[in-house]
Amino acid sequence: MNPQNSTDILDVYLPLAHALADEARTLALRRFRTRLDVSIKADDSPVTIADREIEAALRLRLAAACPTHGVFGEEQGREHLDADWVWVIDPIDGTKSFITGSPLWGTLLALLHRGRPVLGMIDIPFTAERWWAVAGGAAQYQGAATHASACETLAAARLYATSPDLFGDGDRARFERVGGAVALRRYGGDCYSYGLLASGHVDLVVEAGLQPYDYLAMVAIIEGAGGVVTDWHGQPLALESDGRVLAAATPALHAAALALLKD
Amino acid sequence: MNPQNSTDILDVYLPLAHALADEARTLALRRFRTRLDVSIKADDSPVTIADREIEAALRLRLAAACPTHGVFGEEQGREHLDADWVWVIDPIDGTKSFITGSPLWGTLLALLHRGRPVLGMIDIPFTAERWWAVAGGAAQYQGAATHASACETLAAARLYATSPDLFGDGDRARFERVGGAVALRRYGGDCYSYGLLASGHVDLVVEAGLQPYDYLAMVAIIEGAGGVVTDWHGQPLALESDGRVLAAATPALHAAALALLKD
Repeated sequence: MNPQNSTDILDVYLPLAHALADEARTLALRRFRTRLDVSIKADDSPVTIADREIEAALRLRLAAACPTHGVFGEEQGREHLDADWVWVIDPIDGTKSFITGSPLWGTLLALLHRGRPVLGMIDIPFTAERWWAVAGGAAQYQGAATHASACETLAAARLYATSPDLFGDGDRARFERVGGAVALRRYGGDCYSYGLLASGHVDLVVEAGLQPYDYLAMVAIIEGAGGVVTDWHGQPLALESDGRVLAAATPALHAAALALLKD
Repeated sequence: MNPQNSTDILDVYLPLAHALADEARTLALRRFRTRLDVSIKADDSPVTIADREIEAALRLRLAAACPTHGVFGEEQGREHLDADWVWVIDPIDGTKSFITGSPLWGTLLALLHRGRPVLGMIDIPFTAERWWAVAGGAAQYQGAATHASACETLAAARLYATSPDLFGDGDRARFERVGGAVALRRYGGDCYSYGLLASGHVDLVVEAGLQPYDYLAMVAIIEGAGGVVTDWHGQPLALESDGRVLAAATPALHAAALALLKD
């Protein structure tokens, strides 16, 4: 496959991503709101059987369809990350929402080509919603092109963050500079917030403490919707980013938020 | 009607409440995720056309069905609150979620008899979910009895609050005592959090700054699910409560949280 050829990505990898998300959705809904043994991982995030069985199923499918590709998943780690193509999987983003019965959790899929995100997908099983994009193409919501808002100023911006508890002390102070300048701020949402940004309902998402499988799926979607997503230094998101994410509906809004997040 | 007769409430007022919620759902979904002019009320909460038209429609229906009843709604205020029966309406609880495209908003209905909540309903239009209860009866989710969890200790409890921004300084410190003692805490959710508590997915909801139309619908539902809901002094919720709410899955968990919320 010619890696520059986005038609191949559309024809081969996008249908595969939909099939992966379909399978993840079925498995997740089978476990949602049932009694689960919640264990606590070393990093304190709750892991459920659902996470583990979804990632195992998706890895099996990827091993069959793309044996030369690398895979990086939340539960089972890194495999062949030196490959040209690497799939990055979060089986259930928003595990805390999942284990408390809240609908705002989803499966995240990203495909990287030589480290660059070329495909992203956010699937929300409970509400049967899906956002996706291929690099260079328009972001899609339920199969129709979707666009970020035209918001250019902090004073008019609607801001989402998953939880103030995710910010360390220094990051919290920087976040508060942005939070204090916007029209409206809300917590909760995890991956759902980025979908809302891609569809023009939210203008700004600011987060810290994320892992690559939490943010890489967002890149093609936010960019394909006309938005901008980087780390808190304005650098493109990659596997080795530091987990701080700034997503904005427009370049002007991104620049305004970035100025407050930098030292 | 004999106000002591809960059969009458079941036969007459519960079907009426379902009809009100059905109409509110239709109206709300027609406006959800469309461009709305958001105005800022005197108390700074965003109001949309949707709020106003839902409350107007429900008031029309109540005036026709129960002309002697009082009505207290978020948008159009208090009418005949000296009546034996008073309906308390929040056309869209979670307006900030609504105007940012998030699914976790709903219509809240309470019926008071001489000040005591005897019927409560939480309807979530986007996910097509509904919780309700009549005082003395089991709480219902989608038409089946639903139960709060058996959680009795803060150390095992899953806590929800809508936003840390809703607490004043003194309340915030008290909230943090509870928030620091639980197994897991999450923000976001508005009325949805109480539904999750009634169905056993969440064990504790702690909020402040609420209005009667935000909390009165919860009383029959939480109690009908086996839980306990009061203000932060352990007093029953009523029209004149101070807007601080503590809902817990069990009496033991309620007592443990109450001890930390009191001075």
